[in-house]
Formats: sequence, structure tokens, C-alpha cells
Amino acid sequence: MEKQILSLIESKSFSKLRQTLSELNPADIALILEETEKRDLPLVFRILPKELAAEAFVKMESDMQQHLIESFSDAELKGVMDELFMDDAVDIIEEMPAIVAKRILKQTDSKTRQMINKLLAYPDTSAGSVMTTEYLSVKRSMTVDEAFQHIRKNAVDTESIYTCYVTDRSRKLLGVVTVKELLLSPHDAIIEDLMETNIISAGTLDDKEEVVGLFEKYDLYSLPIVDTENRLVGIITVDDAIDVMQEEASEDIEKMAAILPSEKSYLKTGVFETFKSRIPWLLFLMISATFTGAIITSFESRLAQWIGLIAFIPMLMGTGGNSGSQSSVTVIRALSLGDIEFSDIWRVIWKELRVSVICGIVLGVINFVKLYLIDYLLLHSFDDGVHFIEMTAVSLTLVLVVIIAKLVGCTLPIIAKRFGFDPAVMASPLVTTILDAFSLIIYFTIAILLLM
Amino acid sequence: MEKQILSLIESKSFSKLRQTLSELNPADIALILEETEKRDLPLVFRILPKELAAEAFVKMESDMQQHLIESFSDAELKGVMDELFMDDAVDIIEEMPAIVAKRILKQTDSKTRQMINKLLAYPDTSAGSVMTTEYLSVKRSMTVDEAFQHIRKNAVDTESIYTCYVTDRSRKLLGVVTVKELLLSPHDAIIEDLMETNIISAGTLDDKEEVVGLFEKYDLYSLPIVDTENRLVGIITVDDAIDVMQEEASEDIEKMAAILPSEKSYLKTGVFETFKSRIPWLLFLMISATFTGAIITSFESRLAQWIGLIAFIPMLMGTGGNSGSQSSVTVIRALSLGDIEFSDIWRVIWKELRVSVICGIVLGVINFVKLYLIDYLLLHSFDDGVHFIEMTAVSLTLVLVVIIAKLVGCTLPIIAKRFGFDPAVMASPLVTTILDAFSLIIYFTIAILLLM
Repeated sequence: MEKQILSLIESKSFSKLRQTLSELNPADIALILEETEKRDLPLVFRILPKELAAEAFVKMESDMQQHLIESFSDAELKGVMDELFMDDAVDIIEEMPAIVAKRILKQTDSKTRQMINKLLAYPDTSAGSVMTTEYLSVKRSMTVDEAFQHIRKNAVDTESIYTCYVTDRSRKLLGVVTVKELLLSPHDAIIEDLMETNIISAGTLDDKEEVVGLFEKYDLYSLPIVDTENRLVGIITVDDAIDVMQEEASEDIEKMAAILPSEKSYLKTGVFETFKSRIPWLLFLMISATFTGAIITSFESRLAQWIGLIAFIPMLMGTGGNSGSQSSVTVIRALSLGDIEFSDIWRVIWKELRVSVICGIVLGVINFVKLYLIDYLLLHSFDDGVHFIEMTAVSLTLVLVVIIAKLVGCTLPIIAKRFGFDPAVMASPLVTTILDAFSLIIYFTIAILLLM
Repeated sequence: MEKQILSLIESKSFSKLRQTLSELNPADIALILEETEKRDLPLVFRILPKELAAEAFVKMESDMQQHLIESFSDAELKGVMDELFMDDAVDIIEEMPAIVAKRILKQTDSKTRQMINKLLAYPDTSAGSVMTTEYLSVKRSMTVDEAFQHIRKNAVDTESIYTCYVTDRSRKLLGVVTVKELLLSPHDAIIEDLMETNIISAGTLDDKEEVVGLFEKYDLYSLPIVDTENRLVGIITVDDAIDVMQEEASEDIEKMAAILPSEKSYLKTGVFETFKSRIPWLLFLMISATFTGAIITSFESRLAQWIGLIAFIPMLMGTGGNSGSQSSVTVIRALSLGDIEFSDIWRVIWKELRVSVICGIVLGVINFVKLYLIDYLLLHSFDDGVHFIEMTAVSLTLVLVVIIAKLVGCTLPIIAKRFGFDPAVMASPLVTTILDAFSLIIYFTIAILLLM
């Protein structure tokens, strides 16, 4: 399909092209437009039906949007902006350079401009930044028939019409009623008698990650957003909530892997941008590994006697790191999903303690048996006469390292969150670096105690 | 609120309790029921209005559901099951022990039982396992008014009513029409003229992770699921799609942290269960670290001359591991979100190569400067007369390790996916173990070449 369309562009068969594109979904058109040569893009865009063009425009990556906007005449730009829903317009403007954003705002009427500026002012992490201001509100005195008339009149310009919001004169939110309920009620029933007054809502400044969690918990299609005086200012629709969920999950994953989060998709992010998102943590972790180096150096002279012990350093540090990140990552995800909060810290520690003791002992015992059977009997690695003490030192260290790793791993994210830091940053790499130092100190101390 | 209700239970103020609970949302009632003493649970459940009780029941964790089912009489069990939507019933039965599942099925009529058994047969990873068989279908010859009559008649028993599916006599899917379009059309318009025939659908056996991606891409409320002959067999609703998205993200995160995925929430998973999900990878990675140990041992005699080099092992292995997991995790997430596929492998490698060269050189240079200023001038760590060669060996290794780490990290997940393995398993821990071995071999080889 994609190839067929690209060849239609090449052969300039515009009427065929228009017809073929018109049958497609906006998201698919956007994908095709992104594959189009940049110079052909404005031309292809212009032959699309107006509404479809606007819908496809919303779905495009911001660099392509910018390219198109720069090729638009003022009238064309106004045409596209008029077709957009408010929240989509805001999302697009947010990604544009200041000069392009200014030009876009110039093409909107003053009321829209005011609204866009208000939405742009919400912090990036707030519910306000994801909401749209176009929703259906009905009066509580309306009958079902009147409500349907009202919906029919306003549905064209509204993204989400299946939940209607009942407000009073000062826009205070009184209740919600779904189109399903309206369809199931008699024509002359009064909204006030039908509406649900136990409303699930969120504030404009609430954290958007927590707010989209409400969609999952309550199976919502849309969520009303109110200001501090419970006046309805907008709604979040489920499609935007899904985008936020996926973004937040990606962000958490990136942070766990010591990457600064980026908003663009992988192949759209430039090499230098990717470099910039990765180098800070690599640099920090490289420098902080100086400590582990310093620990080794400070034990160096004594290590020279039992150089065989060095071979176990990677295994001990690795197992410590893995154990710790298992716990930290599990706890971070549970925090993100709202499964645990700060008050659960003792339950978490108690659980991790028991898990870590079992894990530690199992690993320690298996390691001891492995050392004896493979390293000692088969490979003759321990030939300095103190093999049992060395094997005990390694295995005992392993038990302690696993226990400490799991306790540090589960505690740090919860404490970080408590003090307003991002728990995901406390994940694998940072925890691992801390644990590397712990592992070495424990190992060398035990070795010295047992062997000296 | 929760405390107030628990005290109402304690004081046995049942009429007040019923009234208070009735005003709550099913999800909140489920949370309260989970805090209730197990012996009070059936009692509290029984005083809830029937429909609300069923909705809350769906939202409870499976151990509590089982406890309730075991306390139900057959008639009660039938009452609850009759209120459930098909997909919820299937989800519950799936989690129950065989004997409980059998008892549940016995209480359903034979048609429902047949349907449930059919749904239970879909593989756990398929779209079929998440779909519901209750949807609204309309005929293409209906007028808008007739369609609304049909919707009104059937809406009560249908979860998702805002998209109607147009099918022919053999249940082949011809088109879809939304309630919004119906509301915006004249009363006597014919469905056939209104329906969208360019339908986004998925097959029953398609991978559920990919299928829920369609919701994000096309902003859907529901998605029709068809069999191999394009006959409509069910739909997936957006709330279930969200659950799958969050589960898949959690699973990816768990796998990246070397944990076998579990379906229960953190605090609901028992200590032994958590242990079982964590020990296999810890054990595997501990044993596989034998290789890194063996590498060190094989260089041991030569290392004894430059024991100072040992101090840099943790830094080199750590930086290699971090660089590699940055790439692998980014690529795994991009694969999950459908941003890249196998055919992009060369684009990915070319990008990672450039990023890794920049990262490697920057880290190498900074490391060299740091070694010279801090380790050599300040701490006098290199006092064996070959400090420049040693510093060069460490820094050069760093450059190579970062480049190889990023290339291995980005390639493995794509190749894994190509061969039907799970890319997430290829993430941090496994990649790290492979890279640990690489790092050591490169380090020792360079050291020997430069110093001997």
C-alpha cells in the first residue's frame, strides 16, 4: 500500500492519489507522509480532504509538522488550525520553535489564542497539560430528549461525546451522565435524576502519571479536570491517557537503564541527541567507579598474597548488582502503578529481607558446592592449601551481598519518592554502583578475617 | 472513608453500611473488601446491591475472589456469574484452581459454558484471550432510528455500546458505525451509507501486545476481532487494552531486571513466589560469571606484575555494562512499541555505532585526563614507571568496550525477536554478562600488547 502510494506521488497521478489516500486512516496517512520526500510533502498534503489532512497532521512527528507549517501560507495554516481540537493544537505548538509557535498563534482568533496560552502555562507534568477544553456540558434541568438535541448540535466540534458533564452557572461540576444511560432512559426523564453525583475527577495541577492511573482503576473513557474551586475546566480523554501511560512507562524504563528520557521515537532521535541523553550517567558512573577502584587499591598489598581471590570479584559484584536491581526495579514499578506507597516501607523491607535470606542461602550453598566440585576437584584452582577457607569466604560474602543488595535496592526508591526525587533514577545503575562498593568491602573484610 | 466503613462492619450497622457502600465506585469497594477480615467478607458482600456486588467482585484480587466463591451457595454463585460480562467471567475462571473453575462452570447455562470454554481455549498471549463476545451488531439495511431502537434494547447487557458492528448473515464484518455518527445523521439515513468500511481489526490468534498497540495508534475505543474467515467473533474494549499495555510494560521491566514476570501486584505476591521468580536468573548469571573468573585466572600470572591494573576492572566492566544496557533497553522498548522492526537492523546498528564512537571517545579522553590529574599527580597511584602506558591501556580499553557494548546491546534484542525469542530477556543482565567477558579479554589483551 505504502509503495503504491509513493509511486502515485512519483508519477504525479494526483486524482488517483487523492482517492486512495481518502480511504485511509489518518494514522496511516501520517506514516506515509513521513516517508514522502520533503519537497513533495506540502503538495501531497494539499490534495487531502481538509478534515482528513488535519487529522493526519496531528499524528505526524513534530519535525515533519514544522516542515509543513513553514511551507503553509497564512490562510492554509489558519485552515489547518481551525480543524484541530484544542489539546492537539497545544501539543503541536509546544514542540515548535518559538518563532513558528508565534506564527501559529497569530492565525488563531483571540479567544482560541487565550485558551491555548492558558493550556500552555500548565506544567508539563500536570493533568492540565494533557486535558482538552472541548467537552459536552448539559444542564441538570434538561430532559433526555433535550440533552440529545444538545449533543447532536455540539458533537461535531467535540472529541469525546459519550460522557456529558452537568455543571451549574458558575461551572461547578454537579454530576456526570453517559450517553449509554441517556439511551436507556425514557425520553422525558430529567438529567438531575439520572446523573451520577459520586464523580471521579482530578485537579489541573495533579501529577499526570497519577491521574492517568485513574483510567486503569475505574475503567474510564474520560475524566473531568477541575480547578481548586471544583469548577470544570477540561477533560482528559482515554486516548490521551494511553499516550501518557506509554510515555511514563518508556521514561521509567529509560531511567532504569541510566538514560535521560527523550520524547521522540528511537529512529527519530538524532545521533547527537541520543549521545546527550546517554553520556551524563555513563560519565557519572565511570567517575564514581573510582571508589571501587580505590577500595581494591587499598587492599592491594594484602591481595597480592591470595591473588586467586581476585577472580571472584566480577561474580560477587555481578550477583550483588543483579539482586539489587531485581528489588529496586520491582519496587519502582509498584510505586508507579500505585501498588505501594511510603507507608508500606516496613512491609516491603520485611518481605525483601525474607526473600533475600532465602536467595542468599541458596546461592551461597550452590556456589560452595560448585567451587568444591568444579574449581577445586576438577580445575584445581585452589592450590594454596587454604581452599576451604577461601571457598567459605567467597560463599559467605555472596550470602551477605545478596541480603544487603536486596535491602538497599528496595529501600532507596521508596525513600527517594518520599523526598520528592524520582524513584526510577534510583534504579539499577546507581544502586549497582553503591552495591559494588559494599560487595568489595564485605568480601575483603571477610577474606582478611578468615585468612589472617 | 475506608476506616469509617471498617468500623461500620465492626459495629454491625448493616443498613448504614449498605447505604454508604452503595454510593461508592466498584473499584473502591473492591479495595475496601480486600481490607476486610476474611470471615466478614461474605457477609459484607451479601449486603451489597446485586449489580454493584458483581462489579466489585470483578475488581478484586483472585485470592479474595476464590475465598468468596468458596463461601457462596450454588444459587449465590449463579447470581454473581449471571451479572458478569463474558470476558470478566473468563478472567476470573482462568485464575481459579481447577475444582473451583469446574464448580463455577456448572452454575452457568450450557450456551454460556460453551462460550466460556471457547474463550478459555485461546492462548494466553493471543488477542482472543482478552476479547469479549458481547458487542452490538446492526444490519446494514437498518435506518438510524432502527439502529437506536436496537441499541436501546441491547445496551444493558453490553459492555461497550459506542461502536456498532455491521455484519452479514454469516457474521462477516462489513463495517463499523459509531454512536456519534448515528447521533449526527438524519433519523432515516441507512446504516450502509454511514458505515466505515475501511475497518481496523485483528485476528483471534494475533499477539495481544501488538493488537493493543492499535489502540494507541488509531485512538480506538474498541477493536473488532475476527477469525480466519473474517467473521466477527468478539471485540476488545479500551479498558482491557489498557490492562494489557500496563501488564506488558511491567513484564518487560521485570525481564529487563532478570525477574521472571508475575501477574500479581507486589504486596500480593508471597515470599516464596517472589523467590521463585528471582532465583533462576540469579543462579544462571552467577554460574555464567564463572567465565569472567576463568578469564581473570588465565591472565593471573601475568597480572601479578601489574597488580595496579586490577583496580580498574570494576570501572571497565561497569561502564561496559551500562553502555550496553542503555542500547539494549532502548531497542527493546522501541521493538515493544512497534517503532522499529527487524528490517531496521542496519539503521539501528549505524546509529548506535556513531553514538558509541562519540560516547567512547568522550569517556576515554575524560578518563585519561582524570587518571593523569587525580590518580597520577594527586594520589601517586602509578608509581611503577610505566604510568603513561598503563593510562593509555585503560583509556583505550574504555573506548573499545563502549563501542562493542553498544553494538552487542542493540543487535541482540533485534536478532532475538527475529528468531521468535523474547527481546526483553536479552536485556541488561544477559547482555552485561556477555560484555563482562568481552571487557576483560579486551583489557588484558591491550595491557599485554602495550606492556610486554
